[in-house]
Amino acid sequence: MTVADRWLLPDGIEEILPPRARRAEALRREMLDLFDCWGYDLVIPPHLEFLESLTAGVDHDLELQTFKVTDLMTGRTMGLRADTTPAVARIDAHSLTDDGPVRLCYAGSVFHARPASLGASRAPIQLGAELYGHTGQESDIEVISLMLETLGVVGMDSPNLDLGHVQIYRVLVASAGLDKDQEQLLFDALQRKATCEVEELLARWCVDADVVPLFMALTGLSGKVDVIAKARSVLANAPVEVFEALDALENIAQTITRQYPKVNLYLDLGELRGYHYHTGVVFAAYVPEHGQAIAKGGRYDGVGRMFGRARPATGFSTDLKALLDFKPCVVESRAIIFAPADADSAVVRKLRQQGLRVIIELPGQKTDAVSSGCNQQLVCRDGDWQVESI
Amino acid sequence: MTVADRWLLPDGIEEILPPRARRAEALRREMLDLFDCWGYDLVIPPHLEFLESLTAGVDHDLELQTFKVTDLMTGRTMGLRADTTPAVARIDAHSLTDDGPVRLCYAGSVFHARPASLGASRAPIQLGAELYGHTGQESDIEVISLMLETLGVVGMDSPNLDLGHVQIYRVLVASAGLDKDQEQLLFDALQRKATCEVEELLARWCVDADVVPLFMALTGLSGKVDVIAKARSVLANAPVEVFEALDALENIAQTITRQYPKVNLYLDLGELRGYHYHTGVVFAAYVPEHGQAIAKGGRYDGVGRMFGRARPATGFSTDLKALLDFKPCVVESRAIIFAPADADSAVVRKLRQQGLRVIIELPGQKTDAVSSGCNQQLVCRDGDWQVESI
Repeated sequence: MTVADRWLLPDGIEEILPPRARRAEALRREMLDLFDCWGYDLVIPPHLEFLESLTAGVDHDLELQTFKVTDLMTGRTMGLRADTTPAVARIDAHSLTDDGPVRLCYAGSVFHARPASLGASRAPIQLGAELYGHTGQESDIEVISLMLETLGVVGMDSPNLDLGHVQIYRVLVASAGLDKDQEQLLFDALQRKATCEVEELLARWCVDADVVPLFMALTGLSGKVDVIAKARSVLANAPVEVFEALDALENIAQTITRQYPKVNLYLDLGELRGYHYHTGVVFAAYVPEHGQAIAKGGRYDGVGRMFGRARPATGFSTDLKALLDFKPCVVESRAIIFAPADADSAVVRKLRQQGLRVIIELPGQKTDAVSSGCNQQLVCRDGDWQVESI
Repeated sequence: MTVADRWLLPDGIEEILPPRARRAEALRREMLDLFDCWGYDLVIPPHLEFLESLTAGVDHDLELQTFKVTDLMTGRTMGLRADTTPAVARIDAHSLTDDGPVRLCYAGSVFHARPASLGASRAPIQLGAELYGHTGQESDIEVISLMLETLGVVGMDSPNLDLGHVQIYRVLVASAGLDKDQEQLLFDALQRKATCEVEELLARWCVDADVVPLFMALTGLSGKVDVIAKARSVLANAPVEVFEALDALENIAQTITRQYPKVNLYLDLGELRGYHYHTGVVFAAYVPEHGQAIAKGGRYDGVGRMFGRARPATGFSTDLKALLDFKPCVVESRAIIFAPADADSAVVRKLRQQGLRVIIELPGQKTDAVSSGCNQQLVCRDGDWQVESI
């Protein structure tokens, strides 16, 4: 490696420089304060854990996305967390012992061995909130609302909100008596909206003729909230759990529309994002200028089982760095005071204690007050040190 | 791995739970605000970089302490940063192009493959400040002062401050004409204050009889500021650069004593902490209840050379988690409001916008307002929602 390329960063790994880092910190504080007002307690999970803890009960894809390192002290494999949720679930299940609802939030880097999508960051600053211990729609509504408030902080008042419910597909799979491999093949075909392939697979497996049209209908059931009514009629022969899911979806959609009328709600019953991980409602927010979901989440009941305590859970996460790009850049008008090298240190200390920024001149420095970013200066007038505009 | 131990964390890796995490966040903000008032701009360097960038120009020990991972995208070896300084030096040398003084600060996790000392954390939250582009004592005094202010935030008003200057040993080594291996052997012996071994080594290498007593004197030159006067007489035959270092040390010691009279200053001319890395003044702060240095730093001119721009540099760092243990725990007296599930969402929103914490009851939840940590509640009186004490 030569001098010329020693400063290169790996693909998808970024540094945040001034003044952007200051804006990132301000946004981080704003977000954590918002979560705090909603009753979410901050947790700071480790970045490094034993691999089995990091990937317990989650999507297999997450393990592939996890950087592995060997722990020199134990010889065991550790991983760099690729998602914060498993660690927070572990904290709820094991470290906290509350039986009631537990609200937790976090903000910290996660690491992806492969970018989640082309050109995506491999080190997002994941920001999220999780609500444990409650199964009803009310907790789903709360986390979706908090997600929308979070987006509102950076001016995203009218995002597109995709809403789905993995329980519908799960129930149909069970009623069709598909095995794990079949479930996976069908899942892949549905995700690609490859209806011909879905039809062919179901025919090959001799799936009950009553169930086939239900699967076939899934890919077409998307649109505004009235798609629920259509689903009730198209899926009329489905087991009762499908209707419970539809009721929940409808209630959530109506409440969110009432409280956030500017949000563009889009229901998609074939949407199975995070299917292997989620157990109920799934949701994702999109904005026009961002290729991927800007925030996403869903219900993932029982994730704590791997840590000895199965608890209902629902939550969302987003990337602070992605949000930062959307936050309008306001020019700061704060005072930055240049103090000469011989300035009275007691005066300087007092100014700083008032929260003012004071930069001390260093003997021989090549840059002056203005090029150091200062707009005021400390000057001695008749023995008194005073702050004056430059 | 069974359910029972899946929640185990690797040795030296910690999670921070509520309410401690909230206190950690508050302290983090207080520290970054302090750095900001002193003119230090926040940078957020990546946690993962190519190994050669992370370990360029620094102590060999740092490489041994660095977790290595393979970058699946390039096949190259990356490292998890074990120290933030090299990344910040890279940013000053390459990403910023300012010729004048540049003040940068940071707060973020670092990772140690082996704990720095027995029982030490392997994932400290490193907090630090660096001043680039100035060679004089004034910048050393500034960073030492900022370090003392940082400790003052957690109530450490009278730490022990060890002060040394690696230039003295460096000049003596040059004048004795020692080679790299000899320098290392002598360094090891001096660090152990093994005077007999020092004497034996110098005799074996037939070092000039004029220089031998200078080396021998080094281990004994420690104490209050008057040790400088003693050093001037004992080292009278040393090259002129030794006296420049002594002048600098004396000036720094006097200034710090004047501005921070409660600090217990201890000068140690044989102190060579970070010798392979530092180039001038080195310092470390100790407090009685903490086995290791609670904060430390020094001058490391030229570190940016590896990134194409050698700049003078001085700085310090500490561990937020270690400091947090010293911060007095103040019981918060803020209002936490419990809102029933049917509370008016507009009223709740307004309260939260005022920065108040409002926790919404979830239907069927087992815990009541008080066990949810609330001290106030939202109640409907004659159609009006009001906040009342519980």
